[in-house]
Amino acid sequence: MRPYKVVNVSVNPKGSLETLSQREVQQLSEAGSGDTYKLFRQCALAILNTGAQIDNAKTILEAYSDFEVRIHQQDRGVRLELINAPADAFVDGEMIASTREMLFSALRDIVYTESELGSPRIDLQTSAGITDYVFHLLRNARTLRPAVEPNMVVCWGGHSISTEEYKYSKRVGHELGLRNLNVCTGCGPGVMKGPMKGATIAHAKQRINGGRYLGLTEPGIIAAEAPNPIVNELVILPDIEKRLEAFVRVGHGIIVFPGGVGTAEEFLYLLGILLHPDNRDVPFPLILTGPRSAAPYLEQLHAFVAATLGEAAQGLYQLIIDDPAEVARQMTDGLRSVCQFRRERNDAFHFNWLLKIEETFQHPFDPTHENMAGLELNRQMPKHELAANLRRAFSGIVAGNVKNHGIRRIEQYGPYEIRGESAIMRPLDALLRAFVEQHRMKLPGGAPYEPCYRVVD
Amino acid sequence: MRPYKVVNVSVNPKGSLETLSQREVQQLSEAGSGDTYKLFRQCALAILNTGAQIDNAKTILEAYSDFEVRIHQQDRGVRLELINAPADAFVDGEMIASTREMLFSALRDIVYTESELGSPRIDLQTSAGITDYVFHLLRNARTLRPAVEPNMVVCWGGHSISTEEYKYSKRVGHELGLRNLNVCTGCGPGVMKGPMKGATIAHAKQRINGGRYLGLTEPGIIAAEAPNPIVNELVILPDIEKRLEAFVRVGHGIIVFPGGVGTAEEFLYLLGILLHPDNRDVPFPLILTGPRSAAPYLEQLHAFVAATLGEAAQGLYQLIIDDPAEVARQMTDGLRSVCQFRRERNDAFHFNWLLKIEETFQHPFDPTHENMAGLELNRQMPKHELAANLRRAFSGIVAGNVKNHGIRRIEQYGPYEIRGESAIMRPLDALLRAFVEQHRMKLPGGAPYEPCYRVVD
Amino acid sequence: MRPYKVVNVSVNPKGSLETLSQREVQQLSEAGSGDTYKLFRQCALAILNTGAQIDNAKTILEAYSDFEVRIHQQDRGVRLELINAPADAFVDGEMIASTREMLFSALRDIVYTESELGSPRIDLQTSAGITDYVFHLLRNARTLRPAVEPNMVVCWGGHSISTEEYKYSKRVGHELGLRNLNVCTGCGPGVMKGPMKGATIAHAKQRINGGRYLGLTEPGIIAAEAPNPIVNELVILPDIEKRLEAFVRVGHGIIVFPGGVGTAEEFLYLLGILLHPDNRDVPFPLILTGPRSAAPYLEQLHAFVAATLGEAAQGLYQLIIDDPAEVARQMTDGLRSVCQFRRERNDAFHFNWLLKIEETFQHPFDPTHENMAGLELNRQMPKHELAANLRRAFSGIVAGNVKNHGIRRIEQYGPYEIRGESAIMRPLDALLRAFVEQHRMKLPGGAPYEPCYRVVD
Amino acid sequence: MRPYKVVNVSVNPKGSLETLSQREVQQLSEAGSGDTYKLFRQCALAILNTGAQIDNAKTILEAYSDFEVRIHQQDRGVRLELINAPADAFVDGEMIASTREMLFSALRDIVYTESELGSPRIDLQTSAGITDYVFHLLRNARTLRPAVEPNMVVCWGGHSISTEEYKYSKRVGHELGLRNLNVCTGCGPGVMKGPMKGATIAHAKQRINGGRYLGLTEPGIIAAEAPNPIVNELVILPDIEKRLEAFVRVGHGIIVFPGGVGTAEEFLYLLGILLHPDNRDVPFPLILTGPRSAAPYLEQLHAFVAATLGEAAQGLYQLIIDDPAEVARQMTDGLRSVCQFRRERNDAFHFNWLLKIEETFQHPFDPTHENMAGLELNRQMPKHELAANLRRAFSGIVAGNVKNHGIRRIEQYGPYEIRGESAIMRPLDALLRAFVEQHRMKLPGGAPYEPCYRVVD
Repeated sequence: MRPYKVVNVSVNPKGSLETLSQREVQQLSEAGSGDTYKLFRQCALAILNTGAQIDNAKTILEAYSDFEVRIHQQDRGVRLELINAPADAFVDGEMIASTREMLFSALRDIVYTESELGSPRIDLQTSAGITDYVFHLLRNARTLRPAVEPNMVVCWGGHSISTEEYKYSKRVGHELGLRNLNVCTGCGPGVMKGPMKGATIAHAKQRINGGRYLGLTEPGIIAAEAPNPIVNELVILPDIEKRLEAFVRVGHGIIVFPGGVGTAEEFLYLLGILLHPDNRDVPFPLILTGPRSAAPYLEQLHAFVAATLGEAAQGLYQLIIDDPAEVARQMTDGLRSVCQFRRERNDAFHFNWLLKIEETFQHPFDPTHENMAGLELNRQMPKHELAANLRRAFSGIVAGNVKNHGIRRIEQYGPYEIRGESAIMRPLDALLRAFVEQHRMKLPGGAPYEPCYRVVD
Repeated sequence: MRPYKVVNVSVNPKGSLETLSQREVQQLSEAGSGDTYKLFRQCALAILNTGAQIDNAKTILEAYSDFEVRIHQQDRGVRLELINAPADAFVDGEMIASTREMLFSALRDIVYTESELGSPRIDLQTSAGITDYVFHLLRNARTLRPAVEPNMVVCWGGHSISTEEYKYSKRVGHELGLRNLNVCTGCGPGVMKGPMKGATIAHAKQRINGGRYLGLTEPGIIAAEAPNPIVNELVILPDIEKRLEAFVRVGHGIIVFPGGVGTAEEFLYLLGILLHPDNRDVPFPLILTGPRSAAPYLEQLHAFVAATLGEAAQGLYQLIIDDPAEVARQMTDGLRSVCQFRRERNDAFHFNWLLKIEETFQHPFDPTHENMAGLELNRQMPKHELAANLRRAFSGIVAGNVKNHGIRRIEQYGPYEIRGESAIMRPLDALLRAFVEQHRMKLPGGAPYEPCYRVVD
Repeated sequence: MRPYKVVNVSVNPKGSLETLSQREVQQLSEAGSGDTYKLFRQCALAILNTGAQIDNAKTILEAYSDFEVRIHQQDRGVRLELINAPADAFVDGEMIASTREMLFSALRDIVYTESELGSPRIDLQTSAGITDYVFHLLRNARTLRPAVEPNMVVCWGGHSISTEEYKYSKRVGHELGLRNLNVCTGCGPGVMKGPMKGATIAHAKQRINGGRYLGLTEPGIIAAEAPNPIVNELVILPDIEKRLEAFVRVGHGIIVFPGGVGTAEEFLYLLGILLHPDNRDVPFPLILTGPRSAAPYLEQLHAFVAATLGEAAQGLYQLIIDDPAEVARQMTDGLRSVCQFRRERNDAFHFNWLLKIEETFQHPFDPTHENMAGLELNRQMPKHELAANLRRAFSGIVAGNVKNHGIRRIEQYGPYEIRGESAIMRPLDALLRAFVEQHRMKLPGGAPYEPCYRVVD
Repeated sequence: MRPYKVVNVSVNPKGSLETLSQREVQQLSEAGSGDTYKLFRQCALAILNTGAQIDNAKTILEAYSDFEVRIHQQDRGVRLELINAPADAFVDGEMIASTREMLFSALRDIVYTESELGSPRIDLQTSAGITDYVFHLLRNARTLRPAVEPNMVVCWGGHSISTEEYKYSKRVGHELGLRNLNVCTGCGPGVMKGPMKGATIAHAKQRINGGRYLGLTEPGIIAAEAPNPIVNELVILPDIEKRLEAFVRVGHGIIVFPGGVGTAEEFLYLLGILLHPDNRDVPFPLILTGPRSAAPYLEQLHAFVAATLGEAAQGLYQLIIDDPAEVARQMTDGLRSVCQFRRERNDAFHFNWLLKIEETFQHPFDPTHENMAGLELNRQMPKHELAANLRRAFSGIVAGNVKNHGIRRIEQYGPYEIRGESAIMRPLDALLRAFVEQHRMKLPGGAPYEPCYRVVD
């Protein structure tokens, strides 16, 4: 017997502007087979699961294994036929509008990505080419709004956090919204949702109708972190590196809330970019914040930055504990500098062209044992390169802990060996242990934490 | 001394959504050189000349020979710097909003066309590929609105017509507008403007805010037929055949007003398509109309259709003389059939996928003496092929009369020889002579008409 | 047999915000009887006649003598049932939206006027009270928009003018519209329509969606000067003096085009106000203009002002011949002064509270022979009082020429005797004769002009 | 030293449509004196206190005893100057938009009420006259939207409830919002806020932009129950009876959540109306609901209705425990009946004209000892009269418990004597005791409950 209620329905993209060519419809609708179809089916399932309680990708995929989606071209545009779809996405038989919109956004992005690949315009071999590609993906999704002063605040943090941390993220979002700021997140639950919810209420109070709740995701995580229903602009980037680049090019400032290793990885990614000498003058408001209860976590992360990247790196962000209004005020101030800087340099408000992102940040890191062992980690390196390597180390540890291929590697070859200066390795180890103690490192099955790495001084 | 007043200004795309990548800006702004730049400069000049009295492309280009346009990426999006621009496009130093919009539409279309060419998605070798390309161009221009019932009426006819015919086209546009219909034209003066103007007033009376006045043009004619300022959606297709295909795929019905050889060519193009056996069941409202004074012209054209393509071809359209309300009523009726048909066949409202257009209609016809002499013109041929060849004959004659390369060919090799069954050649000759007598065939310098062809029975 | 086509229909106020109480519905719907009903029926008939060719009130009323309108309260608000209504107000059986809107505006104004009368808030005995009443009528009609900078240009002039004058008024409206200005007129044909039509096209070019075409009328003339269908805000003031006051308090500047005695009366009304010492500092852009062909008329009027009210009075307006763009530029300049003045004095943008209007201008003048003979007309009087009396003289002459009660008085008692200084009487006589020669004084039946007055030096 | 932070600011009604006449400005601005001024000052203070934690009217008034508001007429309409205003209404020195809107709504309602009183149109002596007056107040506030299908759900309940009850009201609001329903409450905290907050999030999910959060209040309670900032339409009715009538005429259905004696009084008011024989056929969806923890309360209230008004009265509403989706579904069903009924009877969607409200419900009840002792309370009476008297008894008890004049009366004359059939008095006494035990009866100073009444069988 089926464990979850399902329904069969047809949906039209009411209010959406998507139109497809016959060829695109054909591409997508090729029965059951085809990678494009699989990708779309998987994203659709995640979107239909919006707001439901299951946040485990595998569980969802198994629970709705006979879910199907068919695409029809018709008079009123495109029609999607959903078979055995999760019933929770519907209210009295009708699909929730945000869900419908997101389905058609997924369609748009997947069709675009597919049809662009192979275009001579796309050059994924150079740094500028990758940036250009990210720009095209965002433009096609109508995310780029020229002539609007900087107001898009990215919120990063864990999707599985304490109630207190969740409420704090809502309060911060509320203060941002009161100041007419918009929110961009990775579009799942937790910190991805709290600030959007707070901003929604604040925008209602401020009578702001066009508030933006931008969710950036990618096929690999959308199932695990289904877009929350507040998201009113959804963009599915093709992979994790494009998504990270989209965050920093489209966001005008970033707030980092408590989270797990993934959040730390994102934080180091950004510090690595901002530490690059070319970016010295580029203003980029960055705030590390959380409620009183998260102070130990935040302070440890703060200390870790000092110990590894130095005090200059600490100067790139503000640490604010338990003061949502102050967070919003500092962000507003920071955005003013961004605005002025872009005006002076004639850079676009809607896309941070001037930020230098090195190619090393644009390509995926494959955490083989060899790659992990080969990471250079010492304080003699240029700081932005050290940050890049630390980010890779985090990335590898995440993989070794929770990703299928990483876990298999550890099973096969034993723990990763990370070689580095002990002045770096010791705080790193301490930080990771603290994550475990604070239940910020999610382990499959809830087993006691068994480090997947070994520090080799 | 400069004969026309010029100004230097900077414009931002207020209200427009265009954003460009750095690479696109670079493509366009390459100093002075470059075909893309030339193309954009030429279109921009035509657009800035909107509403002015000079309608001769060459004159405009010469009058503003030192006109320049520079493209800058900046905080608020893209900025255009215009140097020595026609002063008429400005009111007290500020650019008229419609002109500004059209400039940025031209930018959009030219950038898109350039960056698409060479994409593997573009296949200009097959009929389906060309149709797909036209679809992409229109979609990128946001011309395709799904879920809107058929209401786009194309008006074809001369750009240089009598005052009475102009007023009649306005009255027809008024009646269309009263019935909530939109207007699409080739976007110059005359019949391209009258129906839009009439519809604007009618839409105001009916309190319709989003009335659409769609202008489809191409770089080769935009200078001669500058978009009139009522046009609120401008699309620049890459060539005349793509533009014709855009008219019939995006328009839901067509009204043909009096005009010259060009209008006759368009009329035959459409009859050729509608006569194709595959299109037998596709409803396509087509009305031939004009004021009382144009009755002789209309009746001669009507008779020419009977004599060459037969009475069945006459059945594809309605001839309505001097009755704007009846024209609008018949069009409304016809659109209802279109709506019903597309619903039944699940075809898109916004793009006529089901209409069969043979490749011969999608490729340009090069009117060499050899090609003209080789045209098969007899009544034993399938009617749609005869229509296609008649259209080519008209096309050649237009070239021989008024286009540079055509005139030079005639000077060099003497008149074209057109060989065909006399039952076809005689009415053709009569029709062309009537055009001359009625001053519908515009000749350079106003010289007495010297036919550029010789009928060889 | 009925000379005009009629229809029976029901209309709902789609898009209108009018709601009525049960008592108001009852008030209006009292079968056939009742003054309120008669008033509404008469206005409704005029509105339904919008755009038709008959502009004679009596003819219309007779032509549709069995026209009836019934008011029903229903679920969707109020429904009007029209019986034997003029067919021209409908397109294929459906009422034109502007007509429907105006019907419900008439309903709103008549209901409001009726239900207000007798309210202790209404004080028609004092000047301030009358102004307050006009304010309430306009506010109830949602005509007053706070926080919008002065942009409402009143156009006065004849409703029965030459084609050239009509076209000129259209061109002026076009230039006003290009500069984002709105148009207010008396809402009939001729100069009441031309500027609105020109502005509509210009607003379309400037992509202005909320262009305002405000028509102010009153029950006594609405039948003769049916609102043209461009009018998108209609207000029916209770009488001619309230309407004049509404013009000068809600308009930010006024353009006077050629017209007949009525136009001259309006012009003198305004000069009389502006000459008042209290208004010396109140900026009020006033332009007298017309095409080249109207130059003699304009110059004679201009000279008449000098001869009677003096050169200072000439300084209150600009005379611009045949230059629409200059008219619009001067008006734009004038409105800037208005804006600055109101800011400095903290006066409302939407209602000219600071303008002093003496009670003599707020009350009707009854042109009995005694009153006409008693008018003081000499150059020793304060100029604003002379202007007031000249306005009364014009008013009497209009009555003696064309109004029922005036004509009967002349038949009974002979021509009016107007006693005044000959330096005033002679130019007055000359002006009136010129009006007759230029066919600007409309006489019943087209009889040769027989002056209804005798100048007694 | 001042206990609360204050600020001095000037505010303009950005986005509001309010304009005032000079006389109205004068009326309001009369320095410090004047009842109208006092009323406005008091409402303004309550509104500025929106969202703050103090919900005690007296405390607020004392805390900001030197708060002043001055009204200025100016170019951009009306400007309010606030002196010593609560700082919480501002974000970084700028007033929250909803607060600004509400200030101007208060201005509108108070000005209107003042200027209407004394109008001959206002007849407060008859039942129909009072209803008409309520209609005019609501219309002036632009609350009545014709042609919109019934979708306004009134939520009644306590403003001081448990967290669980508050969350439940949010969940119900969320389910209503998902079904495109709007919410109307008494506009304070607790149940007045929860459903609006839930609906706001749901409307965001459903991409509904014009969601309505209508707050109806009156000067006597606005200070104690300051409008929550979600309210986007605020109407201040002149007294409690007009406000209750507004609820039942403008709301299409009502949900009663847990609350105190006030809620019980409202519930009985409505039952009294619905029990009237004339209203037998008028559909009025009424739902009594709460979370699981409130079941005892709800069931006791339900039993009280049976014991006093009989089972027929129970049939007028549905009792739904702990099922928000079911509440919303039943309400949706009920609204469909309302829609159909009004269509059939041609009653307005926007105002429930057909509901009979007896005059006894339209006039205030003055709880003197004599009036309380004289209340007839027995089961032989018509049920709707019994309901009316029970409502009065509750009303008196509320006064005796918490209102100044009531408390003083009790101090002076001892407890009220209520004489009634014991079959009624016993459940009444039990209900009131239960309210006390459940802390639903708020007592000044938190003293142990001392009944202010004595039941005399």
